[in-house]
Amino acid sequence: MCLDKFFNPQSVAIIGAVEDEQSITSAILNNLLEMGYKGTIVPVNPHHEKIFDLKCYPSIFDCKDDIDLSIIAVSSDHVLEILNQHIKKEIKNVIILSGGFAETGDKGTALEEEIKRLSRESNIRIIGPNCIGVLDNYSNFSTFFLPWSKVKRPLKGHLSILSQSGSYAIGMLDMLALEGIGVSRFVSYGNRVDVGESELIEYLTGDDSTKVIGIYMESVDDGRRFIRASRRCSGDKHMVVLKVGRQKSGINAARSHTGAIAGRYEIYKAAFKKAGILEVNNLEEFVDACKVLLMQKPARGNKILVLTNGGGFGVAVSDACSAMELDIAETPSGIKESLSRHFPDFFIFNNPIDLTGSAGNEDFGFALKTAFVDNDCYDAAIIIPLMPPPTMTEGVVDIISQRAKESGKPVVVCTIGSVYTKEIKERFESKSIPVFLTPERAVKAMNILVERGKMHGC
Amino acid sequence: MCLDKFFNPQSVAIIGAVEDEQSITSAILNNLLEMGYKGTIVPVNPHHEKIFDLKCYPSIFDCKDDIDLSIIAVSSDHVLEILNQHIKKEIKNVIILSGGFAETGDKGTALEEEIKRLSRESNIRIIGPNCIGVLDNYSNFSTFFLPWSKVKRPLKGHLSILSQSGSYAIGMLDMLALEGIGVSRFVSYGNRVDVGESELIEYLTGDDSTKVIGIYMESVDDGRRFIRASRRCSGDKHMVVLKVGRQKSGINAARSHTGAIAGRYEIYKAAFKKAGILEVNNLEEFVDACKVLLMQKPARGNKILVLTNGGGFGVAVSDACSAMELDIAETPSGIKESLSRHFPDFFIFNNPIDLTGSAGNEDFGFALKTAFVDNDCYDAAIIIPLMPPPTMTEGVVDIISQRAKESGKPVVVCTIGSVYTKEIKERFESKSIPVFLTPERAVKAMNILVERGKMHGC
Repeated sequence: MCLDKFFNPQSVAIIGAVEDEQSITSAILNNLLEMGYKGTIVPVNPHHEKIFDLKCYPSIFDCKDDIDLSIIAVSSDHVLEILNQHIKKEIKNVIILSGGFAETGDKGTALEEEIKRLSRESNIRIIGPNCIGVLDNYSNFSTFFLPWSKVKRPLKGHLSILSQSGSYAIGMLDMLALEGIGVSRFVSYGNRVDVGESELIEYLTGDDSTKVIGIYMESVDDGRRFIRASRRCSGDKHMVVLKVGRQKSGINAARSHTGAIAGRYEIYKAAFKKAGILEVNNLEEFVDACKVLLMQKPARGNKILVLTNGGGFGVAVSDACSAMELDIAETPSGIKESLSRHFPDFFIFNNPIDLTGSAGNEDFGFALKTAFVDNDCYDAAIIIPLMPPPTMTEGVVDIISQRAKESGKPVVVCTIGSVYTKEIKERFESKSIPVFLTPERAVKAMNILVERGKMHGC
Repeated sequence: MCLDKFFNPQSVAIIGAVEDEQSITSAILNNLLEMGYKGTIVPVNPHHEKIFDLKCYPSIFDCKDDIDLSIIAVSSDHVLEILNQHIKKEIKNVIILSGGFAETGDKGTALEEEIKRLSRESNIRIIGPNCIGVLDNYSNFSTFFLPWSKVKRPLKGHLSILSQSGSYAIGMLDMLALEGIGVSRFVSYGNRVDVGESELIEYLTGDDSTKVIGIYMESVDDGRRFIRASRRCSGDKHMVVLKVGRQKSGINAARSHTGAIAGRYEIYKAAFKKAGILEVNNLEEFVDACKVLLMQKPARGNKILVLTNGGGFGVAVSDACSAMELDIAETPSGIKESLSRHFPDFFIFNNPIDLTGSAGNEDFGFALKTAFVDNDCYDAAIIIPLMPPPTMTEGVVDIISQRAKESGKPVVVCTIGSVYTKEIKERFESKSIPVFLTPERAVKAMNILVERGKMHGC
């Protein structure tokens, strides 16, 4: 069954809607109005006639319109009753935001099982419970119950996120927005009584606005289906996963969190590999991996040119590359000669090429042309232009971007610092050159491109 | 011999001073004037009469004042001649910023050996060459030749930094300034013909304004002296080291960079341990470790309470703690009972304690008082207050800070997001509660406090 109505409903009911700053339903209504959602909004609450100037219905039976999707945010004790009403009214799609189910112990688990049974028997499709639901940046629809004043809303773009955890989903959303990374669809599915990551991956496989899929996972819903769906999807779209609940105490915490049985990590690791999914170790790597895959293409090999005007960072990048089997291959002698004819003696011509604190914008351009554009000895480049020297100006952004384009090979930039550096970062990223603020993050991002290249045959 | 004149010179000569926006000497003069340096500045250049409205001397012999310290930034070919003039004039302290020595090959190495010989024979003390020299935030003196418009100048504080790499020194400076971490003294010593980290550590051991010493190291100057000096220093001050040039390609890059023979990493690791120095793996960890040691005290054990309103982050922190032998010890049953009497059923009372998205400020206060302040089962706490829910406001900062103070135990905060989150971060840090923007960084910082506690006997 198609999940489209979860993302692009023409009409949406909000059960238990109230007008109260601290309530979940108010936050949802506010966000929908602010985002410019074009469908019909149907607040349901027997105690009100109007909510946010919208007609409010005593129950869903009083509303004559078809309802594509219903949002349930009432206390867990009332969810079953409400769900039965929905089945009677033949509403086919429901998002249950409420917590208080398998994550809280035996009573909640029994309640959750009952919901699962209802879903299976009546074919009502459910996202949740214990989740924050959906954000769709193309239909301007969202069930997120957080004010956009506290969380930055990401731009429209080509990254879709699937997250078991609601708090992670929000954290990611906020970080992605700060990084300027555009998002397509975002789903937090929590305890996953029905719709889970496998079916969502199947859905996103056909979604033209999604180029990269990022997954936060505590446990998998259906291992075989997940691998099958991912293999099909990852041929065309890049997939990144952050698996938590790896260690003993993390596994216990996951059980308390979404009732997930996190299982043996080694099995997951093997499954991700088989499915063509790139694995990352933490939230920062997750955001960085999604960013680099959106902006650059996979590398066809692991020979990396490192070019900098700050030797210390050349050393750090070399260390980090060695630890990851990226090859800082020696500069071929012909190239060294060309460089040494052009540059002063005290520049370092062997990879990592160090143009020293004396270098200016054009020196980066010449070195890149000579060592990267005009020959094929390197598959990709990590460039570290440090901006403090007076000879370095924002003009270097155009020069490096131009050379990167000419090369047809992937490039990532690392630059270090605070306010001025961040301006430079934004300039680079507006030209789709991803920038990372430490050497290790740049190297890990490059490694993602190399790993993806291996998988994909580039 | 005391190094004091490098940090607090009453008079400083600038050899080859010019007035030209792109020149090193102009940048130094500009910075000294901007920082409010109170000593006498003596520009030396035969081609000018005045520089920045200061009388300029044809040579150091023409200046009748005593010169405490001389800054040499001329091309490497002229350094020997200038140095001989200094010896004749009996100037005792010199910083050589120029590059073009052992880092560039045989010719440069020979030149550097000659400087080393001169230094030894004449007792002239040298920092450098191939460095950016000194910044002292107490005497307002600096040889840094970078405009403060491009690099944020850190506040006056209690962290001193020793760095072989100039580019790392600048990167650190800028990152520390952005983090609001106050700096005392900062030295980039480059190729280290004379003054090196061991002597600088001896000097800083007696410096009351320094509480934490951070070291960026490619190689050590004198292993025995370094360990002896560090053991003496680390009893009183916290020491953190970032060793680069660990892997094969990093070692090669280090040789090109500052001519350093990086040596076997395992030997360094053992030496750091013996010397009471905490080791970190990258620039981000370096800044985080310095920050947490400045703001919090060491932990007396490894039993960590994790408290959050976002279960997914509880899972991630648990994972990261397990990987580091931090113990997310189960909540004692008495505390669980107290919590369950007070809180709704769907909160999770076992460590990591999850107050869920429904929690407000006061819930954090109650949980901390019950599980952390009023008993001794935990040695430290990682608190993850996610701010998006409408029930969470900036008032939580005072509540958590107050409980942390009452407990007398170390606390670090992790919170995730972008703009609003960063406001909260600043509020916490103004109360000396360090905040980290990912779970892994918070856990690593806590681990630093636990490791330091083990060393120190707390």
